[in-house]
Amino acid sequence: MVRVGIFGASGYTGQELLRILLRHGKVRVEAVTSRRFAGQPVRDVYPSFTGLTELSFTDLEPRQLAESVDIVFLAVPHGVAMDFAASFLETGRRLIDLSADFRLRDAACYGQWYGKHRAEHVLREAVYGLPELYREKIRGARFVANPGCYPTSVILGMAPLLKGNFVDPGSIIADSKSGVSGAGREPQVGSLFCEVDGGFKAYKIAGHRHTPEIEQELSVLAGRDIRITFTPHLLPLNRGILSTIYASLAKDADAGAVLSAYRTFYREEPFVRVYPAGSFPNVSSVRGSNYCDIGVAVDKRTGRSIVVAAIDNLFKGASGQAVQNMNLMCGFPEATGLDICPLFP
Amino acid sequence: MVRVGIFGASGYTGQELLRILLRHGKVRVEAVTSRRFAGQPVRDVYPSFTGLTELSFTDLEPRQLAESVDIVFLAVPHGVAMDFAASFLETGRRLIDLSADFRLRDAACYGQWYGKHRAEHVLREAVYGLPELYREKIRGARFVANPGCYPTSVILGMAPLLKGNFVDPGSIIADSKSGVSGAGREPQVGSLFCEVDGGFKAYKIAGHRHTPEIEQELSVLAGRDIRITFTPHLLPLNRGILSTIYASLAKDADAGAVLSAYRTFYREEPFVRVYPAGSFPNVSSVRGSNYCDIGVAVDKRTGRSIVVAAIDNLFKGASGQAVQNMNLMCGFPEATGLDICPLFP
Amino acid sequence: MVRVGIFGASGYTGQELLRILLRHGKVRVEAVTSRRFAGQPVRDVYPSFTGLTELSFTDLEPRQLAESVDIVFLAVPHGVAMDFAASFLETGRRLIDLSADFRLRDAACYGQWYGKHRAEHVLREAVYGLPELYREKIRGARFVANPGCYPTSVILGMAPLLKGNFVDPGSIIADSKSGVSGAGREPQVGSLFCEVDGGFKAYKIAGHRHTPEIEQELSVLAGRDIRITFTPHLLPLNRGILSTIYASLAKDADAGAVLSAYRTFYREEPFVRVYPAGSFPNVSSVRGSNYCDIGVAVDKRTGRSIVVAAIDNLFKGASGQAVQNMNLMCGFPEATGLDICPLFP
Amino acid sequence: MVRVGIFGASGYTGQELLRILLRHGKVRVEAVTSRRFAGQPVRDVYPSFTGLTELSFTDLEPRQLAESVDIVFLAVPHGVAMDFAASFLETGRRLIDLSADFRLRDAACYGQWYGKHRAEHVLREAVYGLPELYREKIRGARFVANPGCYPTSVILGMAPLLKGNFVDPGSIIADSKSGVSGAGREPQVGSLFCEVDGGFKAYKIAGHRHTPEIEQELSVLAGRDIRITFTPHLLPLNRGILSTIYASLAKDADAGAVLSAYRTFYREEPFVRVYPAGSFPNVSSVRGSNYCDIGVAVDKRTGRSIVVAAIDNLFKGASGQAVQNMNLMCGFPEATGLDICPLFP
Repeated sequence: MVRVGIFGASGYTGQELLRILLRHGKVRVEAVTSRRFAGQPVRDVYPSFTGLTELSFTDLEPRQLAESVDIVFLAVPHGVAMDFAASFLETGRRLIDLSADFRLRDAACYGQWYGKHRAEHVLREAVYGLPELYREKIRGARFVANPGCYPTSVILGMAPLLKGNFVDPGSIIADSKSGVSGAGREPQVGSLFCEVDGGFKAYKIAGHRHTPEIEQELSVLAGRDIRITFTPHLLPLNRGILSTIYASLAKDADAGAVLSAYRTFYREEPFVRVYPAGSFPNVSSVRGSNYCDIGVAVDKRTGRSIVVAAIDNLFKGASGQAVQNMNLMCGFPEATGLDICPLFP
Repeated sequence: MVRVGIFGASGYTGQELLRILLRHGKVRVEAVTSRRFAGQPVRDVYPSFTGLTELSFTDLEPRQLAESVDIVFLAVPHGVAMDFAASFLETGRRLIDLSADFRLRDAACYGQWYGKHRAEHVLREAVYGLPELYREKIRGARFVANPGCYPTSVILGMAPLLKGNFVDPGSIIADSKSGVSGAGREPQVGSLFCEVDGGFKAYKIAGHRHTPEIEQELSVLAGRDIRITFTPHLLPLNRGILSTIYASLAKDADAGAVLSAYRTFYREEPFVRVYPAGSFPNVSSVRGSNYCDIGVAVDKRTGRSIVVAAIDNLFKGASGQAVQNMNLMCGFPEATGLDICPLFP
Repeated sequence: MVRVGIFGASGYTGQELLRILLRHGKVRVEAVTSRRFAGQPVRDVYPSFTGLTELSFTDLEPRQLAESVDIVFLAVPHGVAMDFAASFLETGRRLIDLSADFRLRDAACYGQWYGKHRAEHVLREAVYGLPELYREKIRGARFVANPGCYPTSVILGMAPLLKGNFVDPGSIIADSKSGVSGAGREPQVGSLFCEVDGGFKAYKIAGHRHTPEIEQELSVLAGRDIRITFTPHLLPLNRGILSTIYASLAKDADAGAVLSAYRTFYREEPFVRVYPAGSFPNVSSVRGSNYCDIGVAVDKRTGRSIVVAAIDNLFKGASGQAVQNMNLMCGFPEATGLDICPLFP
Repeated sequence: MVRVGIFGASGYTGQELLRILLRHGKVRVEAVTSRRFAGQPVRDVYPSFTGLTELSFTDLEPRQLAESVDIVFLAVPHGVAMDFAASFLETGRRLIDLSADFRLRDAACYGQWYGKHRAEHVLREAVYGLPELYREKIRGARFVANPGCYPTSVILGMAPLLKGNFVDPGSIIADSKSGVSGAGREPQVGSLFCEVDGGFKAYKIAGHRHTPEIEQELSVLAGRDIRITFTPHLLPLNRGILSTIYASLAKDADAGAVLSAYRTFYREEPFVRVYPAGSFPNVSSVRGSNYCDIGVAVDKRTGRSIVVAAIDNLFKGASGQAVQNMNLMCGFPEATGLDICPLFP
């Protein structure tokens, strides 16, 4: 049994990690930390865990936690994670950070969108944890920066189009919609049921911090620096991201060739499902699972491609992908603990 | 009192019309028809009307209905409406058709998207009932084709940008999201609670029938024929459409000038609310009202404008707009019966 | 125009009051206060009010507010209201308090359930503002304690049964379910979308503070002191309370007689709708309206009556009822500003 | 590998069975039948199964299906199941029927609530499949009648109270609330999103067919024939039943003794979780799992007990319990394939 710990485990992402890891089979969760809930049993904070674990939250310091585990999941907010990450790395433990702090390889870019980076010295050690693009690097990594939820959907959605030169990389517009769990469990007016239910809105238009992360990875795929338009929206549902992504077709792009490129690109992937021509995913078809479902249309009438990619933002968009990365880092079969049928309805 | 009738009143659009007209003050609803529910009191089919009206559904033929009313609202599905419309027009009554059958001025275009038009001879009599663009024509019309829900949001959202030559008309992408009431009250698997709640999907990608209607009106505004990409999505909520609309900025487009153009364009409009810079609407802010709320962003970084327009699809997107048209046709103050504060939360 | 002010107007109840009063026709809202949002336009805090009012929140003290208005609505939390109420009454203004502080006539009972009462000297001046039971007293009152949301549904639901001696008053069990808006706009974990959506729970079992308010009024109706079992539940929806109320039938209770008693009891009431035998209300049939819908069953098989009563908790359960009380106090027609068709769907 | 088949697999219950069985580990699903969808891959009817199974629906007759499997799950509606059940039993296969047709041991009682029973000859062979009460019988059974969803929650909620003589068995009132998936996937107006969302209602008051099933089992527990009041309600959510159950306390019932009785009664049960004093379950804490969560209050003030029991109606209330029964019948560890952490949020 590999011993793991979750640092900052009381948010939705943390408890989702715990939920997955408790049924993983090859790891044992040694500790879950939370300053606010230190001393309280997990089941008191999340009654769904009643009878499933006797764990209580602790307020262990990084060094203390590191002593009892082999792998640490860091699930604290961006801006906070950068300080803890360095502490954990000093202990020699392997680390999977679920925050945004180590996803951007360029500290200057981080500075523009988030503020000054205080852990640049460990930044270049971080491997961007999207297995579909960086599987081999992840296997050898001791420090993985787990991708953002929106970026996971957009990057997986666009990779075959860009790799295949099917579209103009400068024309990409990603219109993304996310469930509310992405906003976390901190009480705030905008996340209240009454504010969200029956409502729908765009937010942080032309300024969301996932933009540079998406641009970084799409630029790699395109082979040149690109900028995209990214608009996030808030859906009145708990789990799920659906990204509708537009691009201008290169002259000779053909529907059959495009779909075939997707099938080829994701042929061996355990968690990407490419839909048949004319079919497109619904977030309810991936709920509670690690799948990314993708449908693609080639609209000759307007000369544009339209890609729809759906994930569960807490699962493939956060905790499930983190476990997928852990599996790779530990040499476990990649789907261990993640081989789950989506919950519908 | 002007006497009105609703032909095909048992759907969500029909009952919404009745709801508005019962509190209008200047009209009296003489009859509501429904083949399926003929003989049943409205309150048995929609208990919310208990105590508000003693009306029962009837199965009057068009000629019979016409005898007792001055104005007819036609609220049957497209394809069916075209036959009834001609019958009503023969009686000399004024007619507001809420279907798609008379919105496209070009019968050939109708044929491509919907099928053969069987009432071409009355097609050119129809005035497209978007008051913000065709107010004077509507005042003098005896036959109004009430706009579609998606088109209302996209056309109102884009009109000032196109009129002001701020964007490349060939670059427009409308990513629209609608609540479920737009699908009507017919029982079908896709509209079941369990299929919709917790879910979100795109549908009819690159093929939705509202596309030519949007293109028709945006082409008028642009002064040349244009094609757009339009992607509808299904939101897990009852009422509301939010359209996020992208276009490439003309070189000299400036955020201040763009916002100013919106304010000027809609200065006198009773039902369009332009948001301040940096603010964008939520569908929950227009629920149960005739408002179209619009926010606009100019993103110099990517060279694109992003417009967000929100309406209540049953109200400004259907029945409220129909009553607004009736008010114009009858010489009533335009906001009569529509001067409602949105219901939030 | 009667001049009114809302003290503590930034919560859901306060904005609902404002929404109703802006379309009332016989009053003018002079001021809305809020310490937290003082200086901010209402439309910035609630965008649904864009274009409907130029009012901004102020932080007027009671004495200042009183100078510019004839009637004050007090919409601050219980425990806080009691201090302000006395201040307002000293100014001679008429006052409608929406908190729980003056609903219980017995200060000792208040002490048991809420804590020590600090304004006992004005307590006996308060009239319990349920028009269906106390219309004449309300007309002459200068101080009305607006009923709680749950109590409104249970008291109106049970009044005819108790008045008619159809049931054993000691056997009453009220199983009530409320939408989330009843919890207000204060950010708290339990009101977050993710905690509520897809969930349903009972809370404050055998200990909710509305219990003594219900018992007080049912005891008056029964003619003797009674205790009831009251269980509130949290529904995943915005607006609406549905109370299912059980009691043991007196020997000779008969379905026809019971329904007839309901019809007679509420014959003249503008806002109570009694359903036909075998029909029962849905909260969606009263949304956004001042109605209380009631259905009643007599189950001879088990010897029990089952009453179902539905209201919109923000409307008939709070702000709408407050305006109904204001109408009575001012001699306006009772339905002024409240004559609204429910919003469905 | 035990070979299993699902007869009538295209409804929500059938697909939930398939979902569980595909990850069971000790069985192989050989066939899933559906007349309507015969020939279609499961993934076309339920896209969530994409990549998880290559099964298509077939229209095998019972005898044909029986040839290729060891155990049959019968998931067709009541009234239809009784005919097929006999056919399957004739083939010698073991059978788990998820309909209501064989739950009532008294055919006359069945006749009163459902209509004439056409398979009385096999009725007495059926074992009522509630493992917590009938585990040993189920182990030896070849024909199990899987309990109803509401009954599962009410019977498990009340069993310790009745066994321990803590309450008056004649005083039981069960106020139950269910998510919409209980109504199945048949298109009908009452299950449409717009009819359900934002709504809440009681239905089939004093007449729901689960009443005699609950009475049958509570009578066994009480040791005498009893009648109960049972009121089902429709919740605006997909999955979950919460039953709030009231009864009059016997004189000497004491909170500590009652809670202790629950702990003792369910001490060995893998799927019943008794909450600590003062805590009560939320349906969201059992979503997607086989748990029944129970909280119990003793209210000395009114002399009543209040029990709250929560299940996932598709899981413990239907398909999960069916697999639990299969595990018992096959001698598998009881939790095989069911050892799932609930999905929250």
